[in-house]
Amino acid sequence: MSVDFTYRIHMPHRAGQLAQLTGAIADAGGLIGDITTESVTREGSVRELTVEVEGDEHAQRLADRLGELDEVDVDWFRDRALWVHEGGKLNIEPVHRVANVQDMRDVYTPGVARACRAIEEDPDAAARYTMIGRTVAICTNGTRVLGLGDVGPRAAMPVMEGKAVFYRQLAGISAMPLLIDADDPAGFVETVKRVAPTFGGIHLEDIRAPDCFEIEQRLGDELDQPVMHDDVHGTAVVTLAAAMVAARQADIDMQDATIGQIGLGAAGWGIAALMVEGGAGRVLGSDPKDETHAKAREAGIEVVGVDELMAEADVVVATTGQPGFIEADMVREGQIIFALTNPEPEIDPRAAREAGAVLAFDGTSVNNVLGYPGIFKGALRACADCVNTQMKLAAAWAIAGLSIESDQLVPDVLDPDVHEHVATAVCRAAIDSGAGREGAGPPGL
Amino acid sequence: MSVDFTYRIHMPHRAGQLAQLTGAIADAGGLIGDITTESVTREGSVRELTVEVEGDEHAQRLADRLGELDEVDVDWFRDRALWVHEGGKLNIEPVHRVANVQDMRDVYTPGVARACRAIEEDPDAAARYTMIGRTVAICTNGTRVLGLGDVGPRAAMPVMEGKAVFYRQLAGISAMPLLIDADDPAGFVETVKRVAPTFGGIHLEDIRAPDCFEIEQRLGDELDQPVMHDDVHGTAVVTLAAAMVAARQADIDMQDATIGQIGLGAAGWGIAALMVEGGAGRVLGSDPKDETHAKAREAGIEVVGVDELMAEADVVVATTGQPGFIEADMVREGQIIFALTNPEPEIDPRAAREAGAVLAFDGTSVNNVLGYPGIFKGALRACADCVNTQMKLAAAWAIAGLSIESDQLVPDVLDPDVHEHVATAVCRAAIDSGAGREGAGPPGL
Repeated sequence: MSVDFTYRIHMPHRAGQLAQLTGAIADAGGLIGDITTESVTREGSVRELTVEVEGDEHAQRLADRLGELDEVDVDWFRDRALWVHEGGKLNIEPVHRVANVQDMRDVYTPGVARACRAIEEDPDAAARYTMIGRTVAICTNGTRVLGLGDVGPRAAMPVMEGKAVFYRQLAGISAMPLLIDADDPAGFVETVKRVAPTFGGIHLEDIRAPDCFEIEQRLGDELDQPVMHDDVHGTAVVTLAAAMVAARQADIDMQDATIGQIGLGAAGWGIAALMVEGGAGRVLGSDPKDETHAKAREAGIEVVGVDELMAEADVVVATTGQPGFIEADMVREGQIIFALTNPEPEIDPRAAREAGAVLAFDGTSVNNVLGYPGIFKGALRACADCVNTQMKLAAAWAIAGLSIESDQLVPDVLDPDVHEHVATAVCRAAIDSGAGREGAGPPGL
Repeated sequence: MSVDFTYRIHMPHRAGQLAQLTGAIADAGGLIGDITTESVTREGSVRELTVEVEGDEHAQRLADRLGELDEVDVDWFRDRALWVHEGGKLNIEPVHRVANVQDMRDVYTPGVARACRAIEEDPDAAARYTMIGRTVAICTNGTRVLGLGDVGPRAAMPVMEGKAVFYRQLAGISAMPLLIDADDPAGFVETVKRVAPTFGGIHLEDIRAPDCFEIEQRLGDELDQPVMHDDVHGTAVVTLAAAMVAARQADIDMQDATIGQIGLGAAGWGIAALMVEGGAGRVLGSDPKDETHAKAREAGIEVVGVDELMAEADVVVATTGQPGFIEADMVREGQIIFALTNPEPEIDPRAAREAGAVLAFDGTSVNNVLGYPGIFKGALRACADCVNTQMKLAAAWAIAGLSIESDQLVPDVLDPDVHEHVATAVCRAAIDSGAGREGAGPPGL
């Protein structure tokens, strides 16, 4: 695993000094990121250099090495991720400050009773007079977090807070992490159902398979809000979008193409199932776990061995969790390959291209932050009662459409217009498919 | 019930015009609040007048009446409370925006895994690297909201959002409303326990008695976070503080005084019990519901009839929910009376003073927003595992101390210094009583 450390360094302000420093970092095996100049005086400059290293020990060795350079002092060096996580990543803020007696009368006693009564008389007024209609719960039990596995609910919190940061920044949605201390689907479902009145939508995250399927199914059936497991469907939407764009770039027609999905866990099943729904010619899937096969077949996926899959597929998507799983001699000339396992892919994209792939990408190319903020924004805007296939496909097409315009595989994830574009498409699909209603959403969303 | 409406009015800009307008409002039975001037030109002025009226019909009649005045136009009139509630009162905001690739690496992949691992290795690191340690859940099932009764979870949301507004504005605490769809104590407790890993503290709100006692007791026993039902203990802290200040103003020594609590529901029991803990001479309680008596006696409250209570008590606190419950001839010369039922008190303070009370107050004088933000801030700062009696008494003394300095019954609720003062006292009490630890709280709290 790679880690970013920032080094604060005093050095002479002369030509060649930074070159000496960066050379030393390269010699020590560090990969340099941002360099900022904090101050410059006649005596020297203060710089902060961010360096990707292998871990704590490597970071320390690098600091020692830099300290040995002539006229260079290392003030401090810090693990950037831990540093920016200090105090957490979210605040719950008032929309309006309470500044005087009238404000107090409006938002608290006696005014608040008016809003309560309005909702008591008409439950739909909750979308208008509360935060509920524009708020999503990000629910996890921490049983499958990133590549870390089952770390439990609390250690999953930084991931949930990160997801919520993007919801608000990119789509204007308030998202609250909810860590659920329930290992079993029944306890998880029961808990989410009990707190569901608080939220306009339920985003499921980092729950192990196959529990996640049962949980999503039951919550979808029993709640009248949109429910979506992001690891399954968010990833599928973004992967489908990227696959459509890549296919177009390689002059492959998805409607006639064979798609091969290696690994039928949560993400893999979601991707393959959405490929089927999206109208791909054939969808093959392989997984050594036999218990994944029935669910795959139900979704219209042909279960095959991995050799057959690699031989037949025009587009290969791998989500195996096994770095290096695809060897060069398995690659067929002209294939498109998405090797999505993080942080080390099933095959290095460069190696895949050298082995004959026309296009190849790893997980850094398919960021699921492109999907969920706009999907839920669209669902909330339509007051949709679910996230259905039409809505997911609309999101994928919207993302693909933007990419084709921009000549990139996927559009810029930090551009709020992208997410508004997705939201508009999803809202429209929700209304057209009968899952939502025109103009039903909360004010201003 | 009174309601505030704002009227936007065009009128000539001449001496006497506002007098004509305000006179007409008075004649129509409206009570004028803020008047703001939105624009002035040669032709006239645009003003917004806020008027307390009896309800929607009265508001309409007043608008009709004003429209009949010479040269006066009513542009619009609005229920202020519903107006400011549009879209809800809270947003969940990122602490830092994600502006570039390095930010993304820090708060999301790959950096976030560092924070997850740090917490997996040391659960206490959650207070440092997440929002958990400075976040409170405001939990309700909506079974007893304001004077409205059992309105259910969703219609209770505006009250919960209002409480959260004050948490953040006054004490820097993030507070998330949690509406819990569980009428029974067992379901409520189970749900809160399951989501408890997400929060540093559990604030219970607007839950009917006696369920609220069982819920608070069980959660307090079974969770290692501070748990407090605000209607019981927050109200008690502020009432004890106000009673201490009033007693001092009236030259009554609380240690020798007899306190009489009329009504032994959630708030009443809490007040009387804290009076006992605070060292009042005697504490009498009365309630027509026999089932409240055993719990009162356990807390050291002498249960008596209301006539005996009124005859003996130096300080009377009433939380009966029955406007006009205390008649003038029940008041004893020299008594201090707190008639706390909202919006209409058990006895009008002026009437109580005319009947011989040395001091008399209604619910508007005892605002429990003075209590909970600082209490939870202090508890979170100490990483306390409960809110114990020492902490509640410390909060009451801190509030009373500020009032004595300011020569008011209670200090200014909108002054953040007040809440910091309470937090400091509560944190100290938590550490001294063994409930918390020095320096254990989250960074920056």
